[in-house]
Amino acid sequence: MSTGSDFLLLDAADAPARGLADWLAARLRAAIADRRLSVGERLPATRVLAAELGVSRGVVTEAYRRLAEEGHVAGRGRAGTVVVAVPALPIPGRHTSTTKAIFPRTPGADVFDVLREAPARIDLSPGVPDLTAFPRAAWLRAERAVLTRLSSPDFGYGDPRGAPALRTAITRWLARTRGIVAEPTDVVVVTGVAQALALLAEALQAHDIHEIAVEDPGSLGVRRHLNHHGMATPPVPVDDLGLQVAELRTDAVLVTPAHQFPTGVVLAPERRRELATWGGLIVEDDYDAEHRYDRPPVPALKATLPDQVCYAGSVSKLLAPALRTGWLVVPERYREAVVVAKRFADLGSTALPQLVLAELMDSGELERHLRLLRRRHVRRRDAMTRAIADHLPGARVHGVAAGLYLTVTFDTDVPDTALAAAALDLGVKAQPLSWHAQRPTRPGLVLGYAANPATVLAEGIAAIAKALHQLG
Amino acid sequence: MSTGSDFLLLDAADAPARGLADWLAARLRAAIADRRLSVGERLPATRVLAAELGVSRGVVTEAYRRLAEEGHVAGRGRAGTVVVAVPALPIPGRHTSTTKAIFPRTPGADVFDVLREAPARIDLSPGVPDLTAFPRAAWLRAERAVLTRLSSPDFGYGDPRGAPALRTAITRWLARTRGIVAEPTDVVVVTGVAQALALLAEALQAHDIHEIAVEDPGSLGVRRHLNHHGMATPPVPVDDLGLQVAELRTDAVLVTPAHQFPTGVVLAPERRRELATWGGLIVEDDYDAEHRYDRPPVPALKATLPDQVCYAGSVSKLLAPALRTGWLVVPERYREAVVVAKRFADLGSTALPQLVLAELMDSGELERHLRLLRRRHVRRRDAMTRAIADHLPGARVHGVAAGLYLTVTFDTDVPDTALAAAALDLGVKAQPLSWHAQRPTRPGLVLGYAANPATVLAEGIAAIAKALHQLG
Repeated sequence: MSTGSDFLLLDAADAPARGLADWLAARLRAAIADRRLSVGERLPATRVLAAELGVSRGVVTEAYRRLAEEGHVAGRGRAGTVVVAVPALPIPGRHTSTTKAIFPRTPGADVFDVLREAPARIDLSPGVPDLTAFPRAAWLRAERAVLTRLSSPDFGYGDPRGAPALRTAITRWLARTRGIVAEPTDVVVVTGVAQALALLAEALQAHDIHEIAVEDPGSLGVRRHLNHHGMATPPVPVDDLGLQVAELRTDAVLVTPAHQFPTGVVLAPERRRELATWGGLIVEDDYDAEHRYDRPPVPALKATLPDQVCYAGSVSKLLAPALRTGWLVVPERYREAVVVAKRFADLGSTALPQLVLAELMDSGELERHLRLLRRRHVRRRDAMTRAIADHLPGARVHGVAAGLYLTVTFDTDVPDTALAAAALDLGVKAQPLSWHAQRPTRPGLVLGYAANPATVLAEGIAAIAKALHQLG
Repeated sequence: MSTGSDFLLLDAADAPARGLADWLAARLRAAIADRRLSVGERLPATRVLAAELGVSRGVVTEAYRRLAEEGHVAGRGRAGTVVVAVPALPIPGRHTSTTKAIFPRTPGADVFDVLREAPARIDLSPGVPDLTAFPRAAWLRAERAVLTRLSSPDFGYGDPRGAPALRTAITRWLARTRGIVAEPTDVVVVTGVAQALALLAEALQAHDIHEIAVEDPGSLGVRRHLNHHGMATPPVPVDDLGLQVAELRTDAVLVTPAHQFPTGVVLAPERRRELATWGGLIVEDDYDAEHRYDRPPVPALKATLPDQVCYAGSVSKLLAPALRTGWLVVPERYREAVVVAKRFADLGSTALPQLVLAELMDSGELERHLRLLRRRHVRRRDAMTRAIADHLPGARVHGVAAGLYLTVTFDTDVPDTALAAAALDLGVKAQPLSWHAQRPTRPGLVLGYAANPATVLAEGIAAIAKALHQLG
């Protein structure tokens, strides 16, 4: 008979007769969520905790294994098992009253911040790679190398276009992975596509362009950023071949040709040819093109139309959004205006992350990381599509050949904002498709699969099916 | 008799009979400047090089010592002496034809980029601390600690206001060093004062404020940023007590109360009282207040007028401009507008440098670094004032009790832009005072002393005296 454990004041007498491992995992998860156990802290050895609780060691091992699978703890060899991530647990009695407010039919300016802050057991928001795979050791090694060789003036004010080493590394990276031929002088380092859009809006307005057509459906975030910075964003419909180029009525357009957001359509060769003869400025948002699974690479539009395309990319989907590092490859006509905008935005991006990234690109580390991510993501995509086939047999799945997310549409009258709210009530976060559409669209959800392991994805899809069932 | 060294094809037969160490140092400096020797590369062992050149080992040691003093090489224990920084040598026959273009009477939008790129032997631009002191090892240790404990979601999109850990650390730092009482919710992390001004311009315009008075003389860079982002910047004169508050005709003003840029005046108590009853929004640019030498600390205006002051600061003068990390402490009335501006500017700053900085602030490392800088800077300030007394006896020196620079004014009719151009022709970079003035001012130069060792400062001042003599 055991006296319980001082650790978290656990007492196995509180546990149900069956499901001891479930009980223990839940107690640990809750302790991590409310910070009684902090990130970096070590869990007791399985043998010790099992003895204190008077349970078999297998129960503790199983509980630790589940938390590890969820990404909350990790084995650190002889350092034992340590807490690495805080789960976002639903706070009882709080979010249930606000989920509807989180998913209005017309989302506010802070919609993504509100959604990010909303507690949820499972987060299927699109746009994030597997962050547990972030190459911490390689990053630190590269940072040490950079700090060792950096000259003192490199710590001063720098070129607003970015560190020369990174601009060179980016041209090589884009040549290898996207078929783009560019010089370092064509590149402006930015803090991500959000800043890229802000700078472009300013540069286009300096050229008296105040409208940029966008795909419909197309990213709500992109549209919001362009609108905030003074650009009108008239919608141009997307069909199974991609943007309907013939419908363009503006001097500039923003496209996602490699993997249209959110439909996942690849811009068809005939549409590419139409764009080539169209003649306006094309902003290519190549947000996740590196992630492809069952198809040959689609070269960037920039590769074939260098003078017409302003190309935007970032490491948000390759390494981590928190790095806030991306690039613009700008045709000469707009270059000076973009550099002026960058100078007055922030005098140039932070130097150290730029130089570390250049090191990772030049050393082949980033390509290795991409291969690792690709293997992991394809398994997760398969798990999500299987779960959808099992739990949502009536749903149509779009855009699974590439990217970090897929889109499902439903043959129902239920508004997808209501579905997203009901799913969040069940602890699962996802974005309604209608947020990303300017014209009426079939109800649907945009579901990220890259950031969660297979079991969590299956659980998330099951909860969405349950939410749909409740509403239907 | 020696056969010379393969290393850089050095041959001591080329050297003058006296001054072998001078000759060797110059050859090495030139090889570093034109990249024959790259940063990170190791110099030959003194014993080896001395033998190859057929000179005494003391000659080589002395040459290495000079380069180390200049910050171009550093001893790395058993790794020997390695190149750490590239000197900016004048490129013969190039800059002489363009120095006048670098110092127009009305500088262009890219003036500071042009000046930064101009080659010079000695750079006395203000605004940069001793960058050779950057705490590389402490930074790397803190980064390792951060990467070890970071949870995966921290690599995702974050709060646009900045990492909570840094916002908390900043409030503690500002309480300790500047007497400011603030909550983390008052703080918005920005990429430096340049971005702070961009965000404030947007927030003020959202409140229908389109004019912000600035000190005259006052920072050209600040004025340029505000103008670019749509704000008018009417000048208000500065006298020996600081800003002439009675002359204010706007609803907002930007001041540098602790150490007025560029006159170095401290805002007098009676002027502080006038500002307190003035009633408009005060933007406090506290750009270098941590650096004080012969006077007690001047508390921030924000400390006494928390609701009227929007406070801006950064680590550019504390650690390095290349980190692009700063903060705004925003009164509640303008907070939402500033957060919206930050969200649409870049979705928030890069996470890793924020967390590393929080670690350095919380651990006391940053305070240690500041104490080290202060000791070093005061010696450099003394060296510069001594050199001015020796070489420029007619000059008046302003603002030496604090900061990273001083300002000299001259009783002459020579325009200070011509003087700056002539100094650059002699290899010394400095900013003309008239750049920073909207109304006519006495000719002068703004001279940074923090980034150069004493011998270099003396040499720079001597060259400026020579330039003045040539023109007079």
